[in-house]
Amino acid sequence: MGAVRRRQPDGSWQGVQPRDYAAVPGVVRHELIGAPHYRVRYFEVAPGGRTALERHAHDHGVVIQSGRARVTLGVERHELGPGDVVYVGPDELHCFEALGDEPLGFICVAPPAGRGA
Amino acid sequence: MGAVRRRQPDGSWQGVQPRDYAAVPGVVRHELIGAPHYRVRYFEVAPGGRTALERHAHDHGVVIQSGRARVTLGVERHELGPGDVVYVGPDELHCFEALGDEPLGFICVAPPAGRGA
Repeated sequence: MGAVRRRQPDGSWQGVQPRDYAAVPGVVRHELIGAPHYRVRYFEVAPGGRTALERHAHDHGVVIQSGRARVTLGVERHELGPGDVVYVGPDELHCFEALGDEPLGFICVAPPAGRGA
Repeated sequence: MGAVRRRQPDGSWQGVQPRDYAAVPGVVRHELIGAPHYRVRYFEVAPGGRTALERHAHDHGVVIQSGRARVTLGVERHELGPGDVVYVGPDELHCFEALGDEPLGFICVAPPAGRGA
């Protein structure tokens, strides 16, 4: 069955409990949709913060929503902003860092938990 | 391998050819990511326009990016705006209509083509 989750004035979503992300300070994860083939999450990174520099078997589809990002993608680095899109391939090194004074917000799509390939 | 697609000043993305959507006037589709487990698309609906009122086996995960939407979801109707999230379940009737004077833009995640369930 379908569902609507309205964004709240505080930046969270109805019915979605914000969670810490892998014990990285300043990064909060919101699990927006858990569907059979994919998950849709929203991450917010505090100014000056960054997600873990990591690689893993599952891929990511990212759309920047707000703020400025320095994105590590394999051996490359890119400075990106709202509307820009990143595909992180399987086992590709990646990190999202918030530049400037504004939090970095991005949508991150991933396969369902446990389907890494 | 990963990839970056920057959004252009005209609202399109580097390397992504905007396409008509199911011959519905005023609706344009941008295929941003085609990954093994999911596709990430962006739809833009001209003011006063709407997507097809339809149902099908595959589900959708939607995040409104800009404009105002009247969303049909099964027997319900919702008025939504930027940041709001919709999950359209398998075989659920749905339609996205642009309200007001601004185009409606939304991210729409779907399973890979041909994996309807």
